[in-house]
Amino acid sequence: MSEFASKAVDGGITAPNGFRAAGVSCGIKAKGLDFALIASETPASAAAVFTTNRAQAAPVLVSRRNLSSAGRARVIAANSGCANACTGEQGLRDAESMATQAAAALGCTPAEVLVASTGVIGVKLDMSKIARGIESAHAALSADGGASAARAIMTTDPFPKEASAEITAAGNTFRVGGIAKGSGMIEPNMATMLGFVTTDAAVSSELLQRALKAAADDTFNAITVDGECSTNDCVFVLANGASGVHLGEGDYDLLVRALRTVCEPLAIGIVRGGEGATKLVTVRVTGATSNADARRAARAIANSPLVKTAIHGGDPNWGRLVAVAGRSGSDFVLDGAAVRIGPIELFSGGAPHDERALQAADYLKQSEIVVEVDLGTGGRGASQMWTCDLSAEYVRINAEYRT
Amino acid sequence: MSEFASKAVDGGITAPNGFRAAGVSCGIKAKGLDFALIASETPASAAAVFTTNRAQAAPVLVSRRNLSSAGRARVIAANSGCANACTGEQGLRDAESMATQAAAALGCTPAEVLVASTGVIGVKLDMSKIARGIESAHAALSADGGASAARAIMTTDPFPKEASAEITAAGNTFRVGGIAKGSGMIEPNMATMLGFVTTDAAVSSELLQRALKAAADDTFNAITVDGECSTNDCVFVLANGASGVHLGEGDYDLLVRALRTVCEPLAIGIVRGGEGATKLVTVRVTGATSNADARRAARAIANSPLVKTAIHGGDPNWGRLVAVAGRSGSDFVLDGAAVRIGPIELFSGGAPHDERALQAADYLKQSEIVVEVDLGTGGRGASQMWTCDLSAEYVRINAEYRT
Repeated sequence: MSEFASKAVDGGITAPNGFRAAGVSCGIKAKGLDFALIASETPASAAAVFTTNRAQAAPVLVSRRNLSSAGRARVIAANSGCANACTGEQGLRDAESMATQAAAALGCTPAEVLVASTGVIGVKLDMSKIARGIESAHAALSADGGASAARAIMTTDPFPKEASAEITAAGNTFRVGGIAKGSGMIEPNMATMLGFVTTDAAVSSELLQRALKAAADDTFNAITVDGECSTNDCVFVLANGASGVHLGEGDYDLLVRALRTVCEPLAIGIVRGGEGATKLVTVRVTGATSNADARRAARAIANSPLVKTAIHGGDPNWGRLVAVAGRSGSDFVLDGAAVRIGPIELFSGGAPHDERALQAADYLKQSEIVVEVDLGTGGRGASQMWTCDLSAEYVRINAEYRT
Repeated sequence: MSEFASKAVDGGITAPNGFRAAGVSCGIKAKGLDFALIASETPASAAAVFTTNRAQAAPVLVSRRNLSSAGRARVIAANSGCANACTGEQGLRDAESMATQAAAALGCTPAEVLVASTGVIGVKLDMSKIARGIESAHAALSADGGASAARAIMTTDPFPKEASAEITAAGNTFRVGGIAKGSGMIEPNMATMLGFVTTDAAVSSELLQRALKAAADDTFNAITVDGECSTNDCVFVLANGASGVHLGEGDYDLLVRALRTVCEPLAIGIVRGGEGATKLVTVRVTGATSNADARRAARAIANSPLVKTAIHGGDPNWGRLVAVAGRSGSDFVLDGAAVRIGPIELFSGGAPHDERALQAADYLKQSEIVVEVDLGTGGRGASQMWTCDLSAEYVRINAEYRT
């Protein structure tokens, strides 16, 4: 890839040409927008990554089947306030009906509709409300409707997550846009991370799928709030070619990078909006025998309640980072290991540098923190994850009585 | 095993014949007992299980080496207040010196001493204090010193953990006793679960090792407070034969059961004393394709912050149990799955029973909770773990500023 420039633009998921969107209120949530449509003017290549949870919600099952039968899509239909998860046969029929009704409104086949739901588990969709949502959202579809769609998929998210960019590479210019939601798997039973991405580049579904997988691995799959993976998580991408730019196999790296341009800020936005979060924490692991080993250690650190509470309290507690890296299952050599909190090395060569603790405590007063652990194997494996601190507010939010 | 009776007796780790113990204060902690000796009158078979953390503390490395060279032990020497972890070459020399000094006092070889340390990571042992501890503890050794030893290994444990029983099987009677400490990997950097067990049965070290592994798997390895595994965790068992009862290969099941009689209450005691814990939670998983799959799902549930906060808040949130079981990596069939909170089935056959939610909420007011998830595979794999709830107090304890 000789040349790659990205420039932030407005518009979120409707920034790319040929996409319209709308977010409306249909009464599933007590208040606020709760139904979103995102539509491509023409059939678009489509790709998706889904939750690995084996308790898959009905909309996940239906979208997976639609995508594999059609290989392309025209519409994403999503509601918040009800996850349509653990709802049995009726839930599947409701998710299918949601696709069929959206298809009828937009003039495509039901298999060209991807559906998503987020909200309470174990409660059935109110299909009269869904019908109303489809009708109003269809009427409201517009080329600057991205912002309302971003708000309509929120549950207890403290703010909407949007990103969009214009990519210039090899003399071609196209756009990528996206929206996301999620702030932990959240009370009361509000499941789900959702990410929807559009681009006006033309890409085959097969290439789009591989590129999405790669981009998601380093963005949506590199974040954690509480280590939970919901029944409804999914990321969809539609590529409609409206820019006239065709991306082929030789453009794979470029495409991954373009998708990351939008997926990374969306993913980081989810962490920033994590339940009770007061700090964004970037966890970097180096010196691993492989990237996979580095990721395993980074994930263990990013999910450790001891690390997350220490950062919350501003405690430069390098011993916890060593202990978690050591128990992560990844290769770890204590004598070669090192721990840095921001730019301050607190442990290296088997010896602590506790004289730097006050300096590190000062660094931890910031709202954006980087912690780095070298696993000491001498290997070149590295990985990065984003997480948030663990506060008493997280406990309060999640312990609140539901029934 | 045709016959097995156990009867609780007093004495903890000194309940079995031929063991003496003492806990004394040597000044490592600001106040309270901080040094323990446990001594067998005669050389004893010994076995141990150690932390799987790859950042192993110096006493773990020294005890492991001593045990493999001698295959037996006379003495356990343990201090609290300093973990002697991440202390490099000097830490190793200090742990060796602790064994050598204890051996000199007790009249055995250094390889017959098992050492353990628990407390702050990254701080060196003050060897003049250790010398004082060995001297006073040696002078104080007594056949009813178990209780003081149990207190001397505490860090922030809210209460000491002791258990002892007289076992009668096949016409023979012998005793097992033990002490333990641990309440999470706890602030400020107080690492470690320690468990010390004695028996006056005569058992070969090889058989003792296998039986300890089996007993620990269902007790000490079946508990979690915060999912962390420290740099110093270890369980030691000494068998000195003072009862005159010899246990051989044919008594393996009996021996495992005898060890479990003591290890289970000690392990549960650690959970009860977990940081910020207000409830003891037994997690049972059934309907798994294997016991290992059941254990994986049970561990995921027992460590889930969403499950632990819901239980803390008295919220019968069965959706979280389904979601965590589904993402655990174990085989899971949603339509066959079931969730029970206490005796109340809240989800089964793909359908919720939310009309029972208030009944379940009432059950959750108790301080001892059982949750059960059937993974729905139709398999017979089952497992059980113990955990505690996650409270704002846990966050407060662990976020408190250390430096």
